[in-house]
Amino acid sequence: MRTFWHCHIAVSLDGRIARPDGSFDWLEPYPAEEFGIEAFLAEVDAILMGRGTYDVVRGAADWPYAGKDVVVVTNRPLQEAPDRVTARGGDIAAIAAEMEARGYRRVWVEGGGQVIRQVLAIGKLDRLEMAVIPRVLGAGIPLFPQGTPETALRLVSCVPRAGGALHVIYDRA
Amino acid sequence: MRTFWHCHIAVSLDGRIARPDGSFDWLEPYPAEEFGIEAFLAEVDAILMGRGTYDVVRGAADWPYAGKDVVVVTNRPLQEAPDRVTARGGDIAAIAAEMEARGYRRVWVEGGGQVIRQVLAIGKLDRLEMAVIPRVLGAGIPLFPQGTPETALRLVSCVPRAGGALHVIYDRA
Repeated sequence: MRTFWHCHIAVSLDGRIARPDGSFDWLEPYPAEEFGIEAFLAEVDAILMGRGTYDVVRGAADWPYAGKDVVVVTNRPLQEAPDRVTARGGDIAAIAAEMEARGYRRVWVEGGGQVIRQVLAIGKLDRLEMAVIPRVLGAGIPLFPQGTPETALRLVSCVPRAGGALHVIYDRA
Repeated sequence: MRTFWHCHIAVSLDGRIARPDGSFDWLEPYPAEEFGIEAFLAEVDAILMGRGTYDVVRGAADWPYAGKDVVVVTNRPLQEAPDRVTARGGDIAAIAAEMEARGYRRVWVEGGGQVIRQVLAIGKLDRLEMAVIPRVLGAGIPLFPQGTPETALRLVSCVPRAGGALHVIYDRA
């Protein structure tokens, strides 16, 4: 069975996934449960994330991904990483091949933008699921940084959620 | 009656309104008629646009806005401008006040990103209506350039259109 690479992420109306300092205060009125994150996580075997995302998540009170394999794309060692978290440097294609060889059915491409860009660039991203927040930030970390390869997607569904957010799903075209 | 400032624009999934050279080839499969542009234009008294947008539209075979007042935000004179097109330099607040004094009911804030940013910054943008195209460009002119003021919006409607585009309307929150 082929690995399904699934990005599930909240994004501002101007395509930012975090403020310049990595913070998410603007997401507080829009809980991830509204966008099916619990059912989604239950289907995920492994999580792929960049070092910036890891550092922000690791800095929170509790590690939210206990019981999941987590691969952090980084060239620097992790200090006191939680169980089942591993660091991998180098080429994203090699990292992806290694994860596929482990037989994962579904990998959450959590972020940030550079990891998503690289997964797109190697043609692996199967699904892009977004909570589109009705707020322009004006600055911050882009979901699609300059240099993301041009990519056509196929709209699967779009459902309005509380507070005027949109829950949008695109698949690879 | 107060002037209603209405932006109606097509945007890629990564928030680009044109390629780096200003071109729109990626919009060809998504005709503006799908997003109600004709009925919209019929309701518009005047159009506000930046110099880059003007130069692209002016370069096309026919001037599409005959019969509409058009204000181009620019500090350089226009050459052989079509009838009813005027150039205005300087402060966007002064330009907007002048247009309001003319009694326009609805102004199309056509673009580009710098004009939309400035209209947002002076708190005038009443409606943001977008054709969201299911394609990541990876480069180009952003709808919300860095430095756009943080702005909360209110979702009015979201309707899927042909080819997986989304027709989304936000109003000022």
